[in-house]
Amino acid sequence: MAGHFEIFDSIRDDLARVEDKLREKPQSEYEVLSVAIEHLLSSGGKRIRPALVILASRLYSAQIEPQVLALAAAVEMLHTASLVHDDLIDGSLLRRGIPTLNATWTPGATILTGDYLFARAADLAAQTGSLRVMRIFSETLMVICTGELKQQFSDLQTRVRRDDYYARIYSKTASLFALATEAAGVLAHAPDDEIVALREYGLNLGMAFQVVDDVLDFIGDETHLGKPVGSDLRQGIITLPTLCYLEQHPDDELIVRFLRDGRGGEEDIRQAVLAIRESGVIDTALEEAHHFGRRSLLALERVPSGFPCQPMLDLADFVIRRRT
Amino acid sequence: MAGHFEIFDSIRDDLARVEDKLREKPQSEYEVLSVAIEHLLSSGGKRIRPALVILASRLYSAQIEPQVLALAAAVEMLHTASLVHDDLIDGSLLRRGIPTLNATWTPGATILTGDYLFARAADLAAQTGSLRVMRIFSETLMVICTGELKQQFSDLQTRVRRDDYYARIYSKTASLFALATEAAGVLAHAPDDEIVALREYGLNLGMAFQVVDDVLDFIGDETHLGKPVGSDLRQGIITLPTLCYLEQHPDDELIVRFLRDGRGGEEDIRQAVLAIRESGVIDTALEEAHHFGRRSLLALERVPSGFPCQPMLDLADFVIRRRT
Repeated sequence: MAGHFEIFDSIRDDLARVEDKLREKPQSEYEVLSVAIEHLLSSGGKRIRPALVILASRLYSAQIEPQVLALAAAVEMLHTASLVHDDLIDGSLLRRGIPTLNATWTPGATILTGDYLFARAADLAAQTGSLRVMRIFSETLMVICTGELKQQFSDLQTRVRRDDYYARIYSKTASLFALATEAAGVLAHAPDDEIVALREYGLNLGMAFQVVDDVLDFIGDETHLGKPVGSDLRQGIITLPTLCYLEQHPDDELIVRFLRDGRGGEEDIRQAVLAIRESGVIDTALEEAHHFGRRSLLALERVPSGFPCQPMLDLADFVIRRRT
Repeated sequence: MAGHFEIFDSIRDDLARVEDKLREKPQSEYEVLSVAIEHLLSSGGKRIRPALVILASRLYSAQIEPQVLALAAAVEMLHTASLVHDDLIDGSLLRRGIPTLNATWTPGATILTGDYLFARAADLAAQTGSLRVMRIFSETLMVICTGELKQQFSDLQTRVRRDDYYARIYSKTASLFALATEAAGVLAHAPDDEIVALREYGLNLGMAFQVVDDVLDFIGDETHLGKPVGSDLRQGIITLPTLCYLEQHPDDELIVRFLRDGRGGEEDIRQAVLAIRESGVIDTALEEAHHFGRRSLLALERVPSGFPCQPMLDLADFVIRRRT
């Protein structure tokens, strides 16, 4: 299995240019904002979304144009902006092991910084020079916000079905992965059927990525996660492992109580996480991730043979097998 | 003096088309969002920003194209989105006499609805078909957020100078007025010097508008204001009347206490508002509004003679003389 670093090695220079692009400040940016943005950008994200843009663009050209860099930066900036608001809404104080913005700032300052990042993302998207990309971009932001809002107004988490879960992770994660690869195809002037294939690759990869993320929340290492194990359960949010577990044990009191009350003691969390880990549902959930992974590879088969697809195949493999 | 209705009468049909555009839902919009947006849009805003877009476009063409309608709707949607977040941050429960979103929804749902409206605004901006407009648009959103954020991190309000105040109302209000008229010029393919003139008209009109708004917060009628008199002072925010008053009475204990503590009893508010109303600073502040109004008219003189500028002159007059 090719690791994160091997795959990203082949596009290291392009990713470095994306970092530069992300840090390209608008004229006379407010110092407080620049410092906050640097803090957010340097917190060790995987940059998987910009990598998707670069890899999909590389199918069509070895040379990465400034418009593509703007797209890669726009996607990462949009992701960062959503995280700022999500962490505030969820009251999360740590992300990737470092304090979130809302851990030290007022809610007001955090909201406004998120808004500013949305504006920066929109500005970067406009720098792609493509109105079609701009529209995919704003539509994706609508999808993301709608998904989060539905979560806010959602019924009892115990009533969530797999379809609801998939709809939620599509909004939350896969929609932006799909944007990354679709928009890269648009900028490359790829034929429409290839743009559709690229979108499906990104979308399914995003689904796989989020399923694995939700599994890692149960089986991951806290140091690598940068947050406590079982954090979704702590917040009363149902994800695939819990969903599968409840399909087998619909009356499990401990789990139902978490999802109903959205809180519980440390010992309860430990027991619930253990029960889920030992029930076999982790494998069931990972099989779903594999399923999405296979669909992303199938989509890639619709890109003409001879195109340099190998890094994208490796990336799908990495996304499914990663354990951090 | 031509009233709001007389000026807007001449563009009534176009404004009705803007209303339709604002209510054009993306496919399968989440019902909760549609209801919230309708509530926000129907709350009786003056639609002065869309009117600016229409009037500036009419200088160049009697026919209002769909791209211009998209711009007018984008500007109003951006304005609405900022208000949603502002009201949450300020804890305002009423706007124009009706409950704000945050008065009934959780902070999380309110933040996400604001984000969604930003996305709708960006989508409308992309529908102008102009990348130049898109960039002015995202840059303006950065200016607005930066201004609000500076306010969050601002020093003691008693140290605010006129320049700080003008910078703040530029970010808060005039930048979006300037966007409306500048972008209308861009879409009309006006020569660059005319685009600059249009921008200056909008900018100065926005400054005048906000100064008058801040004056009305002291002398307005609560029924028309839709909020209590002296609301800025209640929140510890210094505006031009208070600033002028403190220039004359730097040691006024009551006012200094409001600005320092950001709170006070009803009787204190009543006294402070009365002191400011009776001190003559209202006239001083209104003279500043006139000053900005004159600058907006001067800018219009740089638009070729023979162009139908009269409604824009009337609008400037209305903005300065309005008492609601």
